[in-house]
Amino acid sequence: MQLLKDRILNEGQVVGDDVLKVDMFLNHQIDIPLLDEMGKEFHRLFGDREINKIVTIESSGIAIACMAARYFQVPVIFAKKGKSRNIGDDLYVSSVYSFTRLDSYLITVSKKYLSAQDNILIIDDFLANGHALSGILDIANQAGATVKGIGIAIEKAFQGGGDRLRKKGLDIQSLATIESIRDGKITLADQ
Amino acid sequence: MQLLKDRILNEGQVVGDDVLKVDMFLNHQIDIPLLDEMGKEFHRLFGDREINKIVTIESSGIAIACMAARYFQVPVIFAKKGKSRNIGDDLYVSSVYSFTRLDSYLITVSKKYLSAQDNILIIDDFLANGHALSGILDIANQAGATVKGIGIAIEKAFQGGGDRLRKKGLDIQSLATIESIRDGKITLADQ
Repeated sequence: MQLLKDRILNEGQVVGDDVLKVDMFLNHQIDIPLLDEMGKEFHRLFGDREINKIVTIESSGIAIACMAARYFQVPVIFAKKGKSRNIGDDLYVSSVYSFTRLDSYLITVSKKYLSAQDNILIIDDFLANGHALSGILDIANQAGATVKGIGIAIEKAFQGGGDRLRKKGLDIQSLATIESIRDGKITLADQ
Repeated sequence: MQLLKDRILNEGQVVGDDVLKVDMFLNHQIDIPLLDEMGKEFHRLFGDREINKIVTIESSGIAIACMAARYFQVPVIFAKKGKSRNIGDDLYVSSVYSFTRLDSYLITVSKKYLSAQDNILIIDDFLANGHALSGILDIANQAGATVKGIGIAIEKAFQGGGDRLRKKGLDIQSLATIESIRDGKITLADQ
């Protein structure tokens, strides 16, 4: 998606060797018209799959998922993060390892909102090593829900998570794919 | 706002003496058409105030703020929660006490995205004791930003935060106000 690629190249900030900060339009300040276009693009990619729910993970996925959900006319469910004190029988739970935090955290979805009747689209802001996405897939699997597609805003292809999950047969579509970050320079696929 | 009041009365779940769960349409599963109407209502209430940014707090405020921002045609900034390892000079920081967690947490906003030039609308999902809102107001004050209004989805009036902050001259508009929760029964203002 050219609009997103342009924003990444013009405004994205590289921190260290592999961190891309896009908090000027996606992760902290949110550019609504841009996210609206991203939502429209996800609908173009996945709109024919009879999706009845969009699933994302707090916090940065929520805005993108909501803007996309307007086009799909379906509800959004966001997995909650954190070591909740009251994990009960009524929740699907998975553990996600975070390289940023150097720690694992739990994600949870209430059993009320995800079941074997659901055909879901998973949406998230970043796909890097794929740990967060694997956690969501684990929860979808526990629920028996059918994953009809996975829409990612920015994939960091050099961290390998996307390829590893595609080999399992998942249809992952990323609006912008970063091939490499070297010496502060971002190289996108199909630039 | 009648639509929201009806949803609270029909679907809201009371837990214990004072907790209202609305995770079937607001806090976990998100009903997009409802939030769109809420965004439209916030625009009706605050649309004439030359607001240039909407400020909220992760996670549950993000969806409402984004749906409102479509009507205001302004960006959303969400304050980040948590004890970040890299608090630097580039962040406004405030501390919020949470009765739910029985602990304080930090909220932060990058100095890049809030300044004395900004006229902001603060949007959040709940107003109870007002601690989270006071944290955002503290950050707005640090930035020198002008708070043009505060839009709340659900105010729990019996916890007193709204009245305390209104006495300071703040214009707080809540789409649904809960007068009391007793024996599992929710009583709304102007029902």
